[in-house]
Amino acid sequence: MGVPMTAKLFLSDNAAPCHPRLWEAMRAVDQADSPYDGDRLSQAMDEAFSAAFGRECAALWVATGTAANCLALATMVQPHGGVVCHREAHIEMDEGGAPGFYLHGAKLLLAEGDNAKLTVDSIRAVVDPIRDDVHQVQPHAISITQASEYGCAYRPHEIAAIADCARAKGLRLHMDGARFANAAAFLDVPAGEAAGSVDALSFGVVKNGGMNAEAILFFDPALADVARYRRKRAGHLQSKGRYMAAQLLAMLEGDLWLENARAANAAAAEIAASCGDRLMRPVEANELFVRCNAAERDALRERGFAFYDWGGDAARFVTAWNSRQDDAMDLARAISGL
Amino acid sequence: MGVPMTAKLFLSDNAAPCHPRLWEAMRAVDQADSPYDGDRLSQAMDEAFSAAFGRECAALWVATGTAANCLALATMVQPHGGVVCHREAHIEMDEGGAPGFYLHGAKLLLAEGDNAKLTVDSIRAVVDPIRDDVHQVQPHAISITQASEYGCAYRPHEIAAIADCARAKGLRLHMDGARFANAAAFLDVPAGEAAGSVDALSFGVVKNGGMNAEAILFFDPALADVARYRRKRAGHLQSKGRYMAAQLLAMLEGDLWLENARAANAAAAEIAASCGDRLMRPVEANELFVRCNAAERDALRERGFAFYDWGGDAARFVTAWNSRQDDAMDLARAISGL
Amino acid sequence: MGVPMTAKLFLSDNAAPCHPRLWEAMRAVDQADSPYDGDRLSQAMDEAFSAAFGRECAALWVATGTAANCLALATMVQPHGGVVCHREAHIEMDEGGAPGFYLHGAKLLLAEGDNAKLTVDSIRAVVDPIRDDVHQVQPHAISITQASEYGCAYRPHEIAAIADCARAKGLRLHMDGARFANAAAFLDVPAGEAAGSVDALSFGVVKNGGMNAEAILFFDPALADVARYRRKRAGHLQSKGRYMAAQLLAMLEGDLWLENARAANAAAAEIAASCGDRLMRPVEANELFVRCNAAERDALRERGFAFYDWGGDAARFVTAWNSRQDDAMDLARAISGL
Amino acid sequence: MGVPMTAKLFLSDNAAPCHPRLWEAMRAVDQADSPYDGDRLSQAMDEAFSAAFGRECAALWVATGTAANCLALATMVQPHGGVVCHREAHIEMDEGGAPGFYLHGAKLLLAEGDNAKLTVDSIRAVVDPIRDDVHQVQPHAISITQASEYGCAYRPHEIAAIADCARAKGLRLHMDGARFANAAAFLDVPAGEAAGSVDALSFGVVKNGGMNAEAILFFDPALADVARYRRKRAGHLQSKGRYMAAQLLAMLEGDLWLENARAANAAAAEIAASCGDRLMRPVEANELFVRCNAAERDALRERGFAFYDWGGDAARFVTAWNSRQDDAMDLARAISGL
Repeated sequence: MGVPMTAKLFLSDNAAPCHPRLWEAMRAVDQADSPYDGDRLSQAMDEAFSAAFGRECAALWVATGTAANCLALATMVQPHGGVVCHREAHIEMDEGGAPGFYLHGAKLLLAEGDNAKLTVDSIRAVVDPIRDDVHQVQPHAISITQASEYGCAYRPHEIAAIADCARAKGLRLHMDGARFANAAAFLDVPAGEAAGSVDALSFGVVKNGGMNAEAILFFDPALADVARYRRKRAGHLQSKGRYMAAQLLAMLEGDLWLENARAANAAAAEIAASCGDRLMRPVEANELFVRCNAAERDALRERGFAFYDWGGDAARFVTAWNSRQDDAMDLARAISGL
Repeated sequence: MGVPMTAKLFLSDNAAPCHPRLWEAMRAVDQADSPYDGDRLSQAMDEAFSAAFGRECAALWVATGTAANCLALATMVQPHGGVVCHREAHIEMDEGGAPGFYLHGAKLLLAEGDNAKLTVDSIRAVVDPIRDDVHQVQPHAISITQASEYGCAYRPHEIAAIADCARAKGLRLHMDGARFANAAAFLDVPAGEAAGSVDALSFGVVKNGGMNAEAILFFDPALADVARYRRKRAGHLQSKGRYMAAQLLAMLEGDLWLENARAANAAAAEIAASCGDRLMRPVEANELFVRCNAAERDALRERGFAFYDWGGDAARFVTAWNSRQDDAMDLARAISGL
Repeated sequence: MGVPMTAKLFLSDNAAPCHPRLWEAMRAVDQADSPYDGDRLSQAMDEAFSAAFGRECAALWVATGTAANCLALATMVQPHGGVVCHREAHIEMDEGGAPGFYLHGAKLLLAEGDNAKLTVDSIRAVVDPIRDDVHQVQPHAISITQASEYGCAYRPHEIAAIADCARAKGLRLHMDGARFANAAAFLDVPAGEAAGSVDALSFGVVKNGGMNAEAILFFDPALADVARYRRKRAGHLQSKGRYMAAQLLAMLEGDLWLENARAANAAAAEIAASCGDRLMRPVEANELFVRCNAAERDALRERGFAFYDWGGDAARFVTAWNSRQDDAMDLARAISGL
Repeated sequence: MGVPMTAKLFLSDNAAPCHPRLWEAMRAVDQADSPYDGDRLSQAMDEAFSAAFGRECAALWVATGTAANCLALATMVQPHGGVVCHREAHIEMDEGGAPGFYLHGAKLLLAEGDNAKLTVDSIRAVVDPIRDDVHQVQPHAISITQASEYGCAYRPHEIAAIADCARAKGLRLHMDGARFANAAAFLDVPAGEAAGSVDALSFGVVKNGGMNAEAILFFDPALADVARYRRKRAGHLQSKGRYMAAQLLAMLEGDLWLENARAANAAAAEIAASCGDRLMRPVEANELFVRCNAAERDALRERGFAFYDWGGDAARFVTAWNSRQDDAMDLARAISGL
């Protein structure tokens, strides 16, 4: 068990180390303070995130992206309702059934879409045929992922169209932003535009240099009021929450979150440039899906690269805030030399 | 908001700073490693805790005591069952309904007992009248708290009697050990004796100098197998779990957990010695429940002591691993001078 | 198994036969019609119950009182909330944990009160100490039982006071009316006054001569909209619902529900008149709680009376719509002759 | 609202009247008896169904097929698990999310298969790719429908293959038998062979001439023990259960269930014989899926036939135990004359 420390790591951004400025921020709160979210930093989060997004929001910390997504959705979806999401969304594929738990049995309604992105058409293909009767689960919300599971970014106009669709149908809109920073960095627009008018955003930090803190941003205060109770009820109200608040505020400070994401994106772009036809998806964040067969993957691994197979003749490479320029260039060369 | 930093803090051990040796341990794992619990330290936990308890166990980290308690109970109790616990147990009073969430609506069956400790008699007073029919919720488990909500320790023979009772009735036995270290230090017996033959133990660290890690120890591997799925499903499987594992292993290393608890207990004992008749409960851990009226509490606060009122003419003082000798002596003098 | 058919039955009203006029009404719908609640009679229920209660309501059929209570509460209480009810309420004591299931783990908050009736004071004794923070389960609703578990009726002014209290605290109000008919008959006021301004009423029919139908009346249409989805989701939307609608409408027709309740109440009153000091509770419906020791109970059973022991030196006798005058007089004589 | 009484009804078997012999049986239990399932008939069900199936089973009544399916599955599937079922299964499409409710958020894992029937291959296509790790919902059971949603029957060897597959993978096997009678009649094999070695069967009666009773048969007594608690907890333990037991036993008596199903199947076969190429599915029970365009459907409706559109150029016709020979012949002629 464990990853060989000598490897050139492109397995996932979810295991990278914690950024030094977050360590400093955590150290700075290492004295007794009010427990739970009563400390000064936890109390400062609403203002800091509202400023960053140019829009009033309530910001709650939690330890994981799964908790962030599911707590956000639990405020929007009644137990007898459903959530429209992409067939390959994280909440459907990788959260061990957490939405079923947090939403008390509400259902995920699976939609299609290239590159794991929903469109108004793909949403309507799911929602429109649902009869408004009690025999079928009615949608209560839509969840989109920025950047998507395949590392692709929703453009502001795409989000706006989906938000309009949601409003027209009386649905709430959630954004899973586990890699929101990478999308925002790619789009090169303000945070508020990369989020659009969603009702809640899971603002990811762990994959972007954090240790163990994510933020849930609620742009409707009524949802935040429910979420505070649900967070405690889910065992996610840490008594020393200030160590999480410290991470989150340090990320916002001087736009460290964007700086980290840009570094990861740049490494990915460098590799992408050498992949040519092998690229299976546009590279718009820090993930590369690369066509290569078993022999080729073996060859790459022999040269010290660590990454995941991705079904059939494919490999996934993920860069992180700390990906070394050298390693990225090595990988680029190795792929083009296959 | 926030606690005045100049106060002499006896509010709670749940907001104390993180112990330096835990910081070191966390720093030592600050490079990429396998995510979730695949890293070297997470994988070492079973062995380390088995050694500490002299009994084979599976050890899982989670971030909070509420998650630890509720995940443990969720492996023991079916949704249509119940858990016998004390009327003032943390799971009943202070977890925001988390047992109802994690146990899918199973019921807490409330029993009496001095100093918030259950006895075989108080358990039987709840369980025996329950008819074995489908109209009444049947007990599936018992949960006891070591040390209790009033800072009192179960003696090994008391636990043994309750465990016998549980076995005789086909019930599982869980121990909430948010302050297990304080109880073990007070009892001055090996960890395994302070736990007795429970099926699972929530081994508390956050109140004893941890940052954000607790351990759930399962002495029956079948329960741990279920818990792993439930932990993920509850959003408690952190991707950088190694920072939690580091805290937990550092606590075991050189019995730091006992050292910290002894320090907190000693401070409490020092204060207790000056309380005389004012003591409302035996002081067997790091909590003092002290009779004093509003004027007396005001007087203490004016002298810089921070603590909670505890209903009527009572105050609660809690010491921590880092309580300063000076502050404890000051408080002792202040109380005896009332 | 089974009750000796020769016994004089005072066990419970929940096992009495079905009233002939309900049989007729069921027969009358014994041809194909729209399934679920699309048939003519199901569609007529709102109007019929609104007329009976002098107040606009939506009426849904379900098969059991447990389903009625829990579906009603599920529309009022979020999963992280609580319901104030009497410590001896049916939802707490006799529904096998159904509230935990239907309310997704919400909590019953137990209050005191003579004769199993809540009062404003007993409600406030539970609700007022609950801090408005996330560590404690917040009340979302109050549930009262008309007539109470001890067969006692809330007077209209008592309900009004509780309803005012509920409104002042932002809580919904539910009434379990498993024996609502008996209470209304006793109070001799219009149905609407016996219900007061509750948000929902479980209108009991099974204990009053029905076969297998109860009504949930929602006086707020928004609650009914949720309930329709929850009813289907709970497997309580029968495809041949017309047989239930027929029972319910037949009960309203010519006030059969009151006629049946008056008959049961009269039998109870007859027995009560002979009980003297033995009566442990006021007899305001169709239940008698009678002090009598084991020898006395044996003597009664030898004379052919069937009834339940009720803990200690007590017996419970329940009359029903079809209780025979002879049997009631026999029992009255037998008790006075003890 | 309501169906025109003059129509020739092929809408659904779920709204047909109740068979006269069931009325008689219900009348015969119309005197006070032990409540819930303590009466003589409820107690006789295990033996009667064991005899009918040639295999020991425990038989529980409930009012609806949704409750039968979901209670059965709730005994087999932990909240963190999943159920493999067909993409068009009733539990997925038509039960308003009831499986999410009863199974506490467990997930339906959707498989393919012609005519809404699963095969070992289609099951393995879903199950085999699921990694045995906590990030993905693990299957705990398989649910098949006899006859399928498209009225097609599993042959005994097909069930045996699926049962072998289930056992090999450690999964439980459930059969939704809403139209089990129609399948058994079509297969012309003993009940036990039409069910195969499933762990539980939802034995449908309502669509086959019942009023409001279905049976859940558990071939493993441990599952039945859990189901009894869950049934009460779901509000499905009727106090006058004898009226349901009477229906179920009357159905078994003299194989009325098969007689009714044969009548419905015969009517369907008569119509099918005239459909030629229009038949979209084999007719192996009492449902016909017939290709016909909007104009043709209008023409049929003008001639007095009531039926459902089935998406695109299709119509569904369902016969019932009481379908009149005349009406079936009329419909056959009308279709062949299109």
